Amino acid sequence: MATIYHQVGIKARLNDVYNAIATTEGVTGWWTSTSGDPETGGELEFSFDGHILVVNVTDNIPGKYVEWTVGGEAGEWLNTRICFELEELDDQVMVNFQHTNWEAETQFLAHCCTKWAVFMLSLKDYLETGTGKPFPDDIHINHTDFN
Amino acid sequence: MATIYHQVGIKARLNDVYNAIATTEGVTGWWTSTSGDPETGGELEFSFDGHILVVNVTDNIPGKYVEWTVGGEAGEWLNTRICFELEELDDQVMVNFQHTNWEAETQFLAHCCTKWAVFMLSLKDYLETGTGKPFPDDIHINHTDFN
Repeated sequence: MATIYHQVGIKARLNDVYNAIATTEGVTGWWTSTSGDPETGGELEFSFDGHILVVNVTDNIPGKYVEWTVGGEAGEWLNTRICFELEELDDQVMVNFQHTNWEAETQFLAHCCTKWAVFMLSLKDYLETGTGKPFPDDIHINHTDFN
Repeated sequence: MATIYHQVGIKARLNDVYNAIATTEGVTGWWTSTSGDPETGGELEFSFDGHILVVNVTDNIPGKYVEWTVGGEAGEWLNTRICFELEELDDQVMVNFQHTNWEAETQFLAHCCTKWAVFMLSLKDYLETGTGKPFPDDIHINHTDFN
């Protein structure tokens, strides 16, 4: 099993960081158009230009931790878990991110690792400046259709 | 052992991508001030505001692959390997990056994973626009001294 790890430190209130990850409006502001029920046991849908990613919210502890488990037609993402752990540190909130339970260490994992960094920076900008760069306005990391 | 993976696709000539990774002038343009001998068996020094990172060039195959093995006073980076594999694909060059041989999956690994993404984007900008964002003009991912 393989895992993608990222960490960013965001100058924002803990509750605002939590809301950016645990509400559909929040996630829409830095990742992509999001709908559904973000509470534990709920289902969320993330839309990428016609492609829909479906996850089950397998944990949601206010101010501390959010975990989504990927379902649906998800290819290599199927049954992977996307986890956000929040930690207050001095005057910032550290977001400890994991995308775990990948079956293999593929080039697609490498692609997704770089892409998650782009979206972690988008989350940081969303909270610190009011404007993120969600899909399709995200930073492109290559010149293919899947960029 | 743990590994950081990234992938970017760069619209540039293969030889230019290779030179950005395999020459001191190149690396200085997207990562940090670099000196030393970039050929296989050589030693390179990367300077970060007084801190010097020393690596041995453990492989250098023109147009294909560059590998550095970290030595010196390197903490968690000691004996890790930083690897760049180049692959021509249609009208771009894919850079398959690995920072491998980490002893443990720590928060510092997570930090470095996000930071390597920042520098992979800097490498892409350096080659596509002529201007990278090397240290200390790199994108900051937190609000500590080590950002």
